[in-house]
Amino acid sequence: MKKLRCALIGATGLAGQQFVSALMNHPWFELTGLAASPRSAGKQYLDALRNSSGMVSWFLTEPLPPHIAQMTVQAGDALDVSAYDVIFSAVEADVAKVLEPKYAQTTPVISAASAFRYEPDVPLLIPPVNPEHLELLRTQQQARGWKGFIAPMPNCTTTGLAVTLAPLQAAFGVKAVVMTSLQAVSGAGRSPGVIGLDIIDNVVPYIAKEEGKVEVETRKILGAPGAPHAMKVSCTCTRVAVLEGHTEAAWVSLERSASVEEVQRALREWKGHPWTEGLPSAPPRWIELHEDPFRPQPRLDRDVHGGMATSVGRVREDDVLENGVKYVLVSHNTRMGAARGAVLAAELLKTRGFLAAT
Amino acid sequence: MKKLRCALIGATGLAGQQFVSALMNHPWFELTGLAASPRSAGKQYLDALRNSSGMVSWFLTEPLPPHIAQMTVQAGDALDVSAYDVIFSAVEADVAKVLEPKYAQTTPVISAASAFRYEPDVPLLIPPVNPEHLELLRTQQQARGWKGFIAPMPNCTTTGLAVTLAPLQAAFGVKAVVMTSLQAVSGAGRSPGVIGLDIIDNVVPYIAKEEGKVEVETRKILGAPGAPHAMKVSCTCTRVAVLEGHTEAAWVSLERSASVEEVQRALREWKGHPWTEGLPSAPPRWIELHEDPFRPQPRLDRDVHGGMATSVGRVREDDVLENGVKYVLVSHNTRMGAARGAVLAAELLKTRGFLAAT
Amino acid sequence: MKKLRCALIGATGLAGQQFVSALMNHPWFELTGLAASPRSAGKQYLDALRNSSGMVSWFLTEPLPPHIAQMTVQAGDALDVSAYDVIFSAVEADVAKVLEPKYAQTTPVISAASAFRYEPDVPLLIPPVNPEHLELLRTQQQARGWKGFIAPMPNCTTTGLAVTLAPLQAAFGVKAVVMTSLQAVSGAGRSPGVIGLDIIDNVVPYIAKEEGKVEVETRKILGAPGAPHAMKVSCTCTRVAVLEGHTEAAWVSLERSASVEEVQRALREWKGHPWTEGLPSAPPRWIELHEDPFRPQPRLDRDVHGGMATSVGRVREDDVLENGVKYVLVSHNTRMGAARGAVLAAELLKTRGFLAAT
Amino acid sequence: MKKLRCALIGATGLAGQQFVSALMNHPWFELTGLAASPRSAGKQYLDALRNSSGMVSWFLTEPLPPHIAQMTVQAGDALDVSAYDVIFSAVEADVAKVLEPKYAQTTPVISAASAFRYEPDVPLLIPPVNPEHLELLRTQQQARGWKGFIAPMPNCTTTGLAVTLAPLQAAFGVKAVVMTSLQAVSGAGRSPGVIGLDIIDNVVPYIAKEEGKVEVETRKILGAPGAPHAMKVSCTCTRVAVLEGHTEAAWVSLERSASVEEVQRALREWKGHPWTEGLPSAPPRWIELHEDPFRPQPRLDRDVHGGMATSVGRVREDDVLENGVKYVLVSHNTRMGAARGAVLAAELLKTRGFLAAT
Repeated sequence: MKKLRCALIGATGLAGQQFVSALMNHPWFELTGLAASPRSAGKQYLDALRNSSGMVSWFLTEPLPPHIAQMTVQAGDALDVSAYDVIFSAVEADVAKVLEPKYAQTTPVISAASAFRYEPDVPLLIPPVNPEHLELLRTQQQARGWKGFIAPMPNCTTTGLAVTLAPLQAAFGVKAVVMTSLQAVSGAGRSPGVIGLDIIDNVVPYIAKEEGKVEVETRKILGAPGAPHAMKVSCTCTRVAVLEGHTEAAWVSLERSASVEEVQRALREWKGHPWTEGLPSAPPRWIELHEDPFRPQPRLDRDVHGGMATSVGRVREDDVLENGVKYVLVSHNTRMGAARGAVLAAELLKTRGFLAAT
Repeated sequence: MKKLRCALIGATGLAGQQFVSALMNHPWFELTGLAASPRSAGKQYLDALRNSSGMVSWFLTEPLPPHIAQMTVQAGDALDVSAYDVIFSAVEADVAKVLEPKYAQTTPVISAASAFRYEPDVPLLIPPVNPEHLELLRTQQQARGWKGFIAPMPNCTTTGLAVTLAPLQAAFGVKAVVMTSLQAVSGAGRSPGVIGLDIIDNVVPYIAKEEGKVEVETRKILGAPGAPHAMKVSCTCTRVAVLEGHTEAAWVSLERSASVEEVQRALREWKGHPWTEGLPSAPPRWIELHEDPFRPQPRLDRDVHGGMATSVGRVREDDVLENGVKYVLVSHNTRMGAARGAVLAAELLKTRGFLAAT
Repeated sequence: MKKLRCALIGATGLAGQQFVSALMNHPWFELTGLAASPRSAGKQYLDALRNSSGMVSWFLTEPLPPHIAQMTVQAGDALDVSAYDVIFSAVEADVAKVLEPKYAQTTPVISAASAFRYEPDVPLLIPPVNPEHLELLRTQQQARGWKGFIAPMPNCTTTGLAVTLAPLQAAFGVKAVVMTSLQAVSGAGRSPGVIGLDIIDNVVPYIAKEEGKVEVETRKILGAPGAPHAMKVSCTCTRVAVLEGHTEAAWVSLERSASVEEVQRALREWKGHPWTEGLPSAPPRWIELHEDPFRPQPRLDRDVHGGMATSVGRVREDDVLENGVKYVLVSHNTRMGAARGAVLAAELLKTRGFLAAT
Repeated sequence: MKKLRCALIGATGLAGQQFVSALMNHPWFELTGLAASPRSAGKQYLDALRNSSGMVSWFLTEPLPPHIAQMTVQAGDALDVSAYDVIFSAVEADVAKVLEPKYAQTTPVISAASAFRYEPDVPLLIPPVNPEHLELLRTQQQARGWKGFIAPMPNCTTTGLAVTLAPLQAAFGVKAVVMTSLQAVSGAGRSPGVIGLDIIDNVVPYIAKEEGKVEVETRKILGAPGAPHAMKVSCTCTRVAVLEGHTEAAWVSLERSASVEEVQRALREWKGHPWTEGLPSAPPRWIELHEDPFRPQPRLDRDVHGGMATSVGRVREDDVLENGVKYVLVSHNTRMGAARGAVLAAELLKTRGFLAAT
């Protein structure tokens, strides 16, 4: 099979690096173009990764393959889009606002950026949860006169929460959610990122705009296409001294009462949407349920199934919310919650006829 | 004024060290006896602090005064109680269960241990919040035939929460509380404590028995003496890589609706109970309110006013709970939440006639 | 091929867990017995791993295989040695002192403990460096009248240093070494281990007995069997807030002058002893040489080649020592430096006729 | 006494914040002007401290005094120098290169920047070590035709080392030094600083240009004015997950043999240069000597005597270097090693007639 030619914009950031990792040795996609800011343009990728001290800021433990290290980085705004079948985007929102619509005139764009997440003709795809939202892409193409489209991924903190709410919504209905996140520093990227001085021996109790994103996106993902769910969502998002893996303590008010065992069973037995069967990045289980109360822990559980499964534990009754249940989850914020989640979405889009080699 | 002679049991642990610090140069109290387990008995305090590698495990940045370093540690079960006016206890619950009632036959015991917290004739004193609960000590003395008494301090995670609920209860009434804690490693003490392998680059989502303690104690503290408050409390307690200072994300359902400004004003203007005025360990304000959304942070805020104030920030409306408000607090778990809180309680008890030099 | 039946004593500690990992799916060895202290005896392995709070202290990211989780732990002093072809030992030195000679009367013991390292008829094997030292095992068997033997591994801090000194010794001769280590907390195990309170935001400048071990062992390993090398070794060993992977800053005085390029070439081209070719745990290269001055870093480099390679960088001239060169190395202390290094030694011993299935 | 009016340039960085702290409530100096980059100019200091997320990046636990929080920040290149008696500089080297000579035409500049450290008519003052080097300032004024001067502080890693070498040089002579540093993240400042992703669970074995600075500066400081000492210095500088306080493992070759006890006595009894007696920032002892081998530790020892003393421990013989001795030191890199060291130098300069209120 001919692989789809992929370009990656925002290649030098941490999210970009996770895209490089997610596309290494992929059976359907081949990374054939790298782009970044004009400052990096013309450099070899390895050199573009150097920080102001000259250190190569490659954060992954898997080594950077030499043939990618040597690729020349292009300027995002000068990319020859016609050379690619799909564009993966790991740029910041303000850059995405400008570049992604330009590309989308001709070419599909799958993006980790938030720029277009809140527009009504734009789906927020989590393939096991709401793949049927992809129909919005047709609406989007017609409305905007594009041959391509923009399919953004949800915020990384939303993803883990939405994956655990999906089986509860299916089994019992969800009325409201209260959530405190303990988020990893990788979520802030590398420039500026979270500096050691701010996070060693510390917690930072605020992440700008994060709580609003989780509240709006959760409703959008769990609703029908174009019709957000009515559940109330109330969050406090904090940063802790963890490298990768967001931990979230959630309280959920169900539509109908359920025992701890029923909730555990719903989580354990959830298979995700059948359209994800056979996708190369799909894990054997979307949710790993723990009964040991000391789990999940980000260091031990973030990488399960390649960072694509959400780990859940500490399922307990709650007597404050109506039909309340509470639990803790860990989700890999830069894998399932960003780059690998986007590649998974690309796999879905390919099998559903939205992407093709040209 | 003649100072009260104080013995400290459980002197070698981390809580014990915080008691040593809290009693250094105290105007009313003098630390004249140190006790610990039989293993430490007969050693100089400095040597009793050595861990299995020989390192002196003194965790405080204030140096250990030489005259205390050289005191000989006694065995807790062989302590000559008649030599002291008050016993401070920093032992584990199982040891407290045995030793504290023995001492209390003749001598007041002020304790950081949980052993007696849940008995109906035992108050859980937080001096600015519920000092009038000390009347239970008279009941206790009569019921048990003791000349002394046992006055335990609340769990460190409860203390910060209760301090912030007190002004809300006074101003608006409190119906229910949802809380996620991000607790410091000092709360687990030094033996075994939380090992680096478990907490570096990690979150541990469970602390045995902690959640039940917070739920029960909060109701007891905020109720009338002997009549716990009816509010519902639902917690998830986690451990993070922070040395000192518990962070808590709280959601509160008020009896009557209040705006963010009203809640902020209630917190800012709260003066605590008038009986605490003039106590040596009382801070100028019990609550420090922040408007900067990035505060409070444990590293920056735990030591404010000697670790005796609770810092609160991120006050926001919440639409999940009825009349909901949410905020973040930081409380110093081994100062206000343990040793210094106990010394503050001793100060209160002295001014109210429960402690005296003999 | 029939696999050798292996027992592991000290199975519950961190070193023991690394042995479990190293023996999972091994082509030549099968873990058929687990032993630990009497406190753990009779429990299932999973339960024996629980700490005093009930948490399963399994520190590895690879999941514990269910069939091993369910094995019943035996008491080390009641082990039926005849059921095993080889005993791996991960106990503390004082326990090793008692148990290992008992087992060695009939059965080979390969040990991570220090108890017998310094006896003249005991080799300290690092297979790529000094496999011919195994001849001492014959001497040992004759002198002690044992059918088995004790083959201890070097201290984890020694191993990385010795691996990098071997090619320098071969190419230029080594006269003296100055070394500062920055050691990971995993080296201290889990009980008591290094507690978070001691190591977060801190460095501990001393590890009891460590420096003497490195100084004596390095000379023993790099000398002829029974005749330690005359090189001088002077160390300062410190502990830092790193989970796994010891970093060492080394200065070496060579017998004859060598340029940086010559030293880099000697390190890069070193193949280790030919007896290690084809051993299942042998990595493709024993030394990974970096030219990027920001490498090696423990988080990025400890796991290269399954934790069996030593990463070296920052090779520079030094003008203080005679014919001086300086560099930085990272070695995985619980893989190459402990459990996997011991399994590698077992592989060597099997191919050299010292171990066999019975 | 009329206080000297001080301006601080580079006020928003971490070093600048330490200057603000060092000048709060100073008996001789008053901070009357703040300057920073044009981006900050015109803002209130508090607002200029906000990072790209809006968080006030004030890293010190002492609160920012309101009257300083409200001062308007000026642009460094538009500063009206005539309004100040002395300029403290906390800018980066490239900015210092431009601004400091401009100011120095009329006004004394005391700087934490490296820009002018290596010029022959510029002293590197550590007041207890080499205050007589201030005579170079007269040479500098004459040669350059300046009314003011530039007095830069040494690199923070040099300072701790030089303080400990001074008594050894005085008592025994020093021939050579080998040193490995384990440096705190505060040394890298706040923008970009060391990000959490690079330093949590990690060591970075390289700090650009740092080793050369230590090697050259140590010789300059310990030599005569204008005539660097001949000692050889060889360093490896690393970064660890510590907030404040550089730890250094040093080996020193003495001119004449000395026992451990003699070396300890020389360190313990060293009083520093008599010109520092009575200076407001001078600590009661410049060196705190520890006999407990587990000290010094950065978290416990960095703040001793307001961060102005160097803590030394683990003094041992070394047999690799000629007349070798080895030890470990901890020095507060942003207090004695930067801002407070500069204020101390200003105090010295004032008492020696180089600074005066106008």
